[in-house]
Amino acid sequence: MGTLKQERDSTQVFDRVTGGHGDDVNRYVEPMRTIDWVDGAVEIIDQTALPDETRILRLSTVDELVEAVRRLAVRGAPAIGVAGAFGVALAARQFAGDPDGLASAVERVRTARPTAVNLARCAGRVADRLPDGPDAALKEALRIRDEEIDSAEQMAQLGADLLVSLCGERPRLLTHCNTGALATVTGGTALAVAFELHRRGALAGMVASETRPLLQGARLTAWELGRAGIPYRLIVDGAGPFLMSRGEVDAVIVGADRICANGDVVNKVGTYAHALGARAAGIPFVVVAPESTVDLDTPSGDAVEIEDRGAAEVVAFRGVAFAPEGAGTANPAFDVTPYPLVTAIVTDRRVIRLDTGEVLGSGRRQ
Amino acid sequence: MGTLKQERDSTQVFDRVTGGHGDDVNRYVEPMRTIDWVDGAVEIIDQTALPDETRILRLSTVDELVEAVRRLAVRGAPAIGVAGAFGVALAARQFAGDPDGLASAVERVRTARPTAVNLARCAGRVADRLPDGPDAALKEALRIRDEEIDSAEQMAQLGADLLVSLCGERPRLLTHCNTGALATVTGGTALAVAFELHRRGALAGMVASETRPLLQGARLTAWELGRAGIPYRLIVDGAGPFLMSRGEVDAVIVGADRICANGDVVNKVGTYAHALGARAAGIPFVVVAPESTVDLDTPSGDAVEIEDRGAAEVVAFRGVAFAPEGAGTANPAFDVTPYPLVTAIVTDRRVIRLDTGEVLGSGRRQ
Repeated sequence: MGTLKQERDSTQVFDRVTGGHGDDVNRYVEPMRTIDWVDGAVEIIDQTALPDETRILRLSTVDELVEAVRRLAVRGAPAIGVAGAFGVALAARQFAGDPDGLASAVERVRTARPTAVNLARCAGRVADRLPDGPDAALKEALRIRDEEIDSAEQMAQLGADLLVSLCGERPRLLTHCNTGALATVTGGTALAVAFELHRRGALAGMVASETRPLLQGARLTAWELGRAGIPYRLIVDGAGPFLMSRGEVDAVIVGADRICANGDVVNKVGTYAHALGARAAGIPFVVVAPESTVDLDTPSGDAVEIEDRGAAEVVAFRGVAFAPEGAGTANPAFDVTPYPLVTAIVTDRRVIRLDTGEVLGSGRRQ
Repeated sequence: MGTLKQERDSTQVFDRVTGGHGDDVNRYVEPMRTIDWVDGAVEIIDQTALPDETRILRLSTVDELVEAVRRLAVRGAPAIGVAGAFGVALAARQFAGDPDGLASAVERVRTARPTAVNLARCAGRVADRLPDGPDAALKEALRIRDEEIDSAEQMAQLGADLLVSLCGERPRLLTHCNTGALATVTGGTALAVAFELHRRGALAGMVASETRPLLQGARLTAWELGRAGIPYRLIVDGAGPFLMSRGEVDAVIVGADRICANGDVVNKVGTYAHALGARAAGIPFVVVAPESTVDLDTPSGDAVEIEDRGAAEVVAFRGVAFAPEGAGTANPAFDVTPYPLVTAIVTDRRVIRLDTGEVLGSGRRQ
């Protein structure tokens, strides 16, 4: 676990922040944080504006933070967890002396998105410190932030070692959604493994699946890969299994929003289709997520409520509509990949080889 | 086979044509043809303008026709076949007395898109009549058009009977891309089966997968289903296998651009992922395509060249870019669904139950 780092002031943060695009992007250097606590408020990179613009949002109230989580301005299970922690710390300041208002605000933070287990857990950890006052709550939130930073580095090392052992030197990896620095405080989960392989000279290239409806793969992953100098090809989601069948991918590597006790993986919709493709092609399917994503209280994916995010995301993109007015939709934000399709789960503490019968918890698989 | 119908004049066609959207759409009545020969030129509905606008393009030269095929203003294997036939008929008139120009024009038509077997075959049938002059060529092209119209009706009946026998009354079907009236001259292939089930009161509803990159499912299939009064839900492509796993789909029904001798199905990219989802969920995967799509000269999908349509379609939609500038892509237009994943193939002449070991040709499976 990481040592507790000091709260930083705004000068340090804005040194690393740029606006607009073009040459400015080169000033967005590695240590930039996706989310942080700065001078009594939460600051995030607004991910809905990328890759066009690197815009910093300052969230001073619980409602602003909840709204940012809901519209995916901050996203990725680890980053959402930190947002939940900071949200409760904000609530502690905003509703000092108003217990009912505080309880209601904490509940709004905990339930801002239903599927992300990190959100409720991290918010809960900070909420447990509320009896000791706002400063104790903030201290716990900052500790969670620092744990996430250390956790990303651990996953990168464990995952890179595993991938080389599974695929040999210089694999070609396919990933879905965005699990890079932008999904965490800094570093990433699945994409952190790709960055680490690249640093070792042990990555041939990436296939990034665009990840409809919100195109996190096209907007965020492609942007991060390009910045890191990693060769990549962007594809539509439906092309993943076909590229695998043609021998163009050596392994699939994804993150997770929740890992159930039996090893079922809840992740961005489209993940399951890639897992089916990997199995059919006989290549490994590896999940990288912090230990905090493991939820032993949820026996299997069947027990997870999957958020339907409504029609707007499916029928249009940035104001350009492409479906008939009034089209009905189904828009599950996540899907469930059953554990038999998962080769291994990499956390910040361990590698669980589901393909050899290893299990997550101490008990038997349910 | 159909009787030869007369060439029609423009009044008949434009009676059924509207511009704009809104109430006008109700005037777009069932018998409208996606492609037809009108007063010495080819007229098509420009499918790149749907659902916003029902725009008719008049193609008077071979180059105009080839360009329309290339940019998918006309699309769907049967409609492309008719376009190829009309293209050669156009060439016969445009290059009368110029044998070299004619040969070159016919070749441009035949190769306007590499994957669609119907294009080369229908163009070839008309080219065989060129020695008898332009009128004989046109007569053959009109015959091909009429065969396609009759063929759609046969597929609808055979397919509807099969689906009821496989799924019982009122199935919920998932389809990919657009295989409705807009993919043929009129009627459709896979979607014609849905229309027929709906006419029989034997369809619970449809799931339409949007079909990135060009969104034929969102733009065209949703539009056709809405017009027909069929309840539907539009989804992103990656959600298909998950909806199947949750028991929300009773069968998958798709078209084909080419069916190989062993039963491998070449169809719009994303089809294979749905086939994997159907197999994992234990539901039927049915392919509906005219007999002309069956290509016994191609032993298997491995032998098919898959067209890569380049980056532009993947990185932006209608001028709205969402990937970083210069992003590399892989953009296969089609994928291959191996025959073991296919429950049955329905053509205009027969139902081939691959799941019970039936084969397409007279010989053994290769």
